[in-house]
Amino acid sequence: MDRDKILLTPGPLTTTLRTKLAMLRDWGSWDSDFKLITAKVCQQLLRIINGDDSHVVVPLQGSGTFSVEAAVASLVPRDGHILVLDNGAYCKRAAKLSQMMGRRCTTLSFPEDQAVCPETLEKALQANQSISHVILVHCETGAGVLNPLEAVAQQCERYNKGLIVDAMSSFAALPIDAQKIRFDALIAASGKCLEGVPGMGFVFIRSAVLKDCEGQSQSLAMDLYDQFNYMKQTGQWRFTPPTHVLVALAEAMDQFEEEGGQPARLKRYQSNCKALITGMARLGFQSFLEPSIQAPIIVSFHAPAEACYDFQAFYAACRARGFILYPGKLTQLETFRVGCIGAIDAMEIEQALQAIALAMQDLGLLSGAPAAHLRPN
Amino acid sequence: MDRDKILLTPGPLTTTLRTKLAMLRDWGSWDSDFKLITAKVCQQLLRIINGDDSHVVVPLQGSGTFSVEAAVASLVPRDGHILVLDNGAYCKRAAKLSQMMGRRCTTLSFPEDQAVCPETLEKALQANQSISHVILVHCETGAGVLNPLEAVAQQCERYNKGLIVDAMSSFAALPIDAQKIRFDALIAASGKCLEGVPGMGFVFIRSAVLKDCEGQSQSLAMDLYDQFNYMKQTGQWRFTPPTHVLVALAEAMDQFEEEGGQPARLKRYQSNCKALITGMARLGFQSFLEPSIQAPIIVSFHAPAEACYDFQAFYAACRARGFILYPGKLTQLETFRVGCIGAIDAMEIEQALQAIALAMQDLGLLSGAPAAHLRPN
Repeated sequence: MDRDKILLTPGPLTTTLRTKLAMLRDWGSWDSDFKLITAKVCQQLLRIINGDDSHVVVPLQGSGTFSVEAAVASLVPRDGHILVLDNGAYCKRAAKLSQMMGRRCTTLSFPEDQAVCPETLEKALQANQSISHVILVHCETGAGVLNPLEAVAQQCERYNKGLIVDAMSSFAALPIDAQKIRFDALIAASGKCLEGVPGMGFVFIRSAVLKDCEGQSQSLAMDLYDQFNYMKQTGQWRFTPPTHVLVALAEAMDQFEEEGGQPARLKRYQSNCKALITGMARLGFQSFLEPSIQAPIIVSFHAPAEACYDFQAFYAACRARGFILYPGKLTQLETFRVGCIGAIDAMEIEQALQAIALAMQDLGLLSGAPAAHLRPN
Repeated sequence: MDRDKILLTPGPLTTTLRTKLAMLRDWGSWDSDFKLITAKVCQQLLRIINGDDSHVVVPLQGSGTFSVEAAVASLVPRDGHILVLDNGAYCKRAAKLSQMMGRRCTTLSFPEDQAVCPETLEKALQANQSISHVILVHCETGAGVLNPLEAVAQQCERYNKGLIVDAMSSFAALPIDAQKIRFDALIAASGKCLEGVPGMGFVFIRSAVLKDCEGQSQSLAMDLYDQFNYMKQTGQWRFTPPTHVLVALAEAMDQFEEEGGQPARLKRYQSNCKALITGMARLGFQSFLEPSIQAPIIVSFHAPAEACYDFQAFYAACRARGFILYPGKLTQLETFRVGCIGAIDAMEIEQALQAIALAMQDLGLLSGAPAAHLRPN
C-alpha cells in the first residue's frame, strides 16, 4: 500500500497531517498576513528559551547548516579565533565552515562516545588566550551524545568568551533557559524537534552582542545582522522566504504549545527513547553510548555480529514494513541509528520494533548482539 | 470568505492545488525514493535548457539569491574580476554579494528603463582586460526589463569571459538553449516560472568549467562543486534538503511538461501580460517600459497622478478583493508592479482588472493616468 513511511531519522522527520495541511495555501511574502506569521513564529521561538527581553531571533532560509555558517560569519570577527569542541561529525562540520570562511579555528578533540569535558575546555582557554569564541554542538547526533551545555557556558562566561551553540537537534526538546545559560548565539531549524518541515533555520542572538555583528559577515545571504535589521524595519524577510515552510512551522509550533511545550516534548521523546532501547535490547541490540550521555533524540546501535547482517538489506527490510532507519556516522565502528523524534509516540516505536524483528527474520539474523568485545561486562 | 488570494507578484506566486498537495507527505532525505525525485528533477531541469550532455545542474537550499551567491563563490576565482551589467535592483544585489565575498567587482550602469547594451559591454571588455566574469540579470524584475542574453553571451564568448546569468524570473518561460547560448552558470529557483513553491534554487554549470570550481568557494554551504560531487556520489543532498519543496517542484515540473513546456508557458504568460497591459490602459494606467523590452513576467505601472492615489490604500483595496499586487522598486519614479506569472491565466487577469477598477472607485480615483510628462506622446 502507498502509505507514508515513518521516519526514524534525525530530520527530516515525521510531521502531523495538520502541519502539512498548512502548506495548502500560497502566501505573498510582502503581505501583512505573512508578516504576522513571521512575527508570531519569532515571538514563540523566543519564549521557548525564555529570551523575550534579552535575545533576538533571526530566521534564515536554507538548511540548519546554513544557519550555523551564518552565525559564525555574523558573530565572529574576521580576526577572531574559534575553538570547536569536537566529539563528532557535526562538530567537524562547524570547524570546516569556520576555516573555509577564513576564521582562525582550533579544534579540541574528544572521543565520539564521550561528552565534551568542561575541565579540558577550561585548560584550553587558559592556555590559549587568543580564543574569542567557542562552538559547542549540544546534541551531537553523529553518535547521539548530549554535551554539557550548562557547564560549557559557565566556562565561557568565566573566561569571557563568546559561545555559539549548535542546538539543531536539542532545541525545543531539551531545556535551554537563556536567563540561566549565557550564549552569544544558539542555532536550530524548522525540521527538528519543533516537528515542522525542513527548509529554514533560525539563530538566537543575545541582544548585547547584536550590534557588534554589523558588517562582520563576508556573505550577503548569511548576514544575520542585515537579515534582522531588515525584518525589524519592514516585517519582511530580506530575500524570498520559504513561505510554505514557515506556515507549516507556525502550525507545528501551535501544536507544540498545545502539547505542553518543551517539558511535554522531552517527556514524549524520553519515553520513545526508553521504549526503543529496551525493545532493541530484547532483540539483542546493544546501544553505543552510556545511558548517562545518551540524548533522547537519536540512538546509535552497534551493528550485529552475525555474518548475515548487512545494513542495506536490513534497512530495506525495515523500509518494506514502513520504517525508515538511518545509517551510522561513526568513524571507527559500524553502527546504525534510530531516531526518537518527530510526531511519533509509543505506538510507532512498538510498531518499529516489530518491523525490526521481522526484518531480522528476513536476513536470518538470530540476534542483534554485536561482537563480543563490544558487549557490556 | 477565507479563500486563497491570487498573487500577482514575481514570486512566491500562485501555484496549483496539485503542486501543493504533493507536500502532504514526509520524505526521508536519505531514502531511495527521495533520491529518485532529486535525480528526476535534475534531469528535467537540464532538458529545459537542452543541456543534458553539456551541463550539470546543482540544486541548492535557500532562496534564489543564495544560489546567485553560490554561483559567484564557486565559479569566480578569488582573484577574479567581475563585471556586473547593472540596470536594476537585482543587478545591484549581485554586485553587492560579489563585493562582500571579496571578489573584485566593477559595475557597468544602464538606465533602469532600458536594456543593457551589448556594444557598451564590448567596449568595457576591450578597455578592461582583467575582467574574468560578467554577470547579467536576464529579466530584471526591478522594472521588468528583458535583457539581451544572446547578444551578451556572444560578446562574452568572443572575449572569452565567463558569463553568469541570473535567470531567476525568466527560466522556463523565456527560451534559453544552452547549445546556442554559451554561459558558465545560469541560476533560477523553484518558486518562479516553474510554478513550484519557494525554498530552493538551482545553478546550471557548463561541464567544461565545473572542475575549475573545486576549492574556490569560501563558503561551505554555498560550495556548488562540493554539493554537486556529493550528490553525484551518493544521490543525496549534502545537507538536509527542503524535502517538501522539492516534491512540490517535481509535481510542478510534471505539469509544466504536460502544459507543453517552455513554449506553452511563454504563450500563457505573454497572453496574461498583454491582457494586463491592455486592460490597465483602459483604466488609464501607463506601463513604465517600452513594449520592446517588456518581459512577460512582471509589469511596472506608473503611479496615477491624482492626489487621492496612495499605494498602501490601493494595495489594500485590491487585496480585499483577493488580489495581491507588488510595490515598485525603482529608484527615481513611483511605480507599482503587477506580475503575469504563476498558475493563472486570462480568467484571473480579467478578475484582477475588475478588482483594480473597483479599488479605484474605493479611492475615488477617476483614472490611472500618470502625471502628464510621463505619458507617451
